[in-house]
Amino acid sequence: MDPQSRIEAHLSLLFTRAATPSGPPLLQAAMRHAVFPGGARVRARLTLAVAYACGDDAPSVADAAASAIELLHCASLVHDDMPCFDDADTRRGRPAVHRAYGEPLALLTGDALIVLAFQALAEGGAKAPRRLASMMAAVAGAVGVPRGIVAGQAWECEPLADLSAYQQAKTGALFAAATIAGAAAAGADPHPWRALGESLGEAYQVADDLLDAVSSEADTDKPVGRDAALDRPSAVRAYGIQGALALLESLTKAAADSIPDCQGAAPLRALIAQEARRLVPKSLSHAAA
Amino acid sequence: MDPQSRIEAHLSLLFTRAATPSGPPLLQAAMRHAVFPGGARVRARLTLAVAYACGDDAPSVADAAASAIELLHCASLVHDDMPCFDDADTRRGRPAVHRAYGEPLALLTGDALIVLAFQALAEGGAKAPRRLASMMAAVAGAVGVPRGIVAGQAWECEPLADLSAYQQAKTGALFAAATIAGAAAAGADPHPWRALGESLGEAYQVADDLLDAVSSEADTDKPVGRDAALDRPSAVRAYGIQGALALLESLTKAAADSIPDCQGAAPLRALIAQEARRLVPKSLSHAAA
Repeated sequence: MDPQSRIEAHLSLLFTRAATPSGPPLLQAAMRHAVFPGGARVRARLTLAVAYACGDDAPSVADAAASAIELLHCASLVHDDMPCFDDADTRRGRPAVHRAYGEPLALLTGDALIVLAFQALAEGGAKAPRRLASMMAAVAGAVGVPRGIVAGQAWECEPLADLSAYQQAKTGALFAAATIAGAAAAGADPHPWRALGESLGEAYQVADDLLDAVSSEADTDKPVGRDAALDRPSAVRAYGIQGALALLESLTKAAADSIPDCQGAAPLRALIAQEARRLVPKSLSHAAA
Repeated sequence: MDPQSRIEAHLSLLFTRAATPSGPPLLQAAMRHAVFPGGARVRARLTLAVAYACGDDAPSVADAAASAIELLHCASLVHDDMPCFDDADTRRGRPAVHRAYGEPLALLTGDALIVLAFQALAEGGAKAPRRLASMMAAVAGAVGVPRGIVAGQAWECEPLADLSAYQQAKTGALFAAATIAGAAAAGADPHPWRALGESLGEAYQVADDLLDAVSSEADTDKPVGRDAALDRPSAVRAYGIQGALALLESLTKAAADSIPDCQGAAPLRALIAQEARRLVPKSLSHAAA
């Protein structure tokens, strides 16, 4: 099964088990709305790619790690879209959860997806208890305080925020968890994999800032120009378009260079080069060439 | 160390590790506001009491389980108090988190406390990996869908909700997790301990309904008369004061009777009898005698 199909199949399995007739139907529908259909599942694919590079000797454990990472990403989007943050109307071309189901259920949807992520880890990791603790620590650290995505979002509420700390927490942390958990799921030493996740996370954030700055709403499935409108830190606002493009290139190079020696290093490097091309917004690809 | 001091000490330790100078200061302050000073720490004390009854051979694992349960309870209070649910001004005699720190930080505080709970489990459980998976499953199941506290809160958003399913999810689930996780933390078979948690959880919910119905604001540290005002299901609204008192008595008896054979069964039974007396609102203690 290709990685994308593996991810969709495992997420569906989790929902089949968790969302039962005895549970509250509207909450369960809102949770599905937040997760299906998904985006590119970039973080989950990264988890599986690293597990594969490390031998993938326990695929169900890697599936659990990948799903957990993806569910936490979806949870953060649901809460970020709420009126007290971005007040976004749409997400992935459809109404945001709080628009489709109301604010109370959007709040609970985020909570329930966070919990489902840990439930997935617990189930998958029960077959490999020693790996479970390591995956749990990586994943929980990537979401909580002081340096996870929740902390990253909280920097938006602080009077003084450092661009790098903010982006590292808001985006980089979950990418780092994806690589660390992928390695841990396959029984490899996870620490050498942190740098790959951190570089890729920063690259995706810079790519997102570029997309926000140069796209029209027709090109992308989310609102654009939000960083300037909401006075959020952004690589484009800090360094300009050309500076951000140069930063993106150096980050994807650092990512490829950081891959530890392992049996699947070469295909992983090729995958990253492919992603790096995809990250440059189409309207800028001549400038980056 | 007595159980209450053990709980406070372990919660403080978790905050010392998680809330660092590199993290967002307002979020970290809001998280402390939500957890300290606490209430009676009933669920965490129950976790430790069961671990103790089962031999408590790994106290740091039991501490982690107790703190996780307490943090999840605090997280649910922060989110329940928000404007889109109860819109409560105060909690434990102080401003609710959303009043003290604003809605965005209250939302993130709940998220961060959920994550910290799983982080605590991961840290404590790393010393006993086989117990970790069992504790994780119990705790995650008590919070998520289809039957955890988040699902319980979601029943308030559904047009039709069954009183027993609602209370079981909203209160009973975390009490059941407290007894199951306490037993698992001490290496005992957790399943026979579910009934104790479920009975006690239902008893606490009925006691809470009685308190809401018969107290004045001066007697308690939370707003009263909320169930009727918010048209929420309540044992008093369903069965009347005397009916609710009789239900409370039968539930605490069922709790004591459910305790499995173990070395610490007798002191645990005494503790439950003591709690049962504390649960009856003072103004009704003559009626229940």
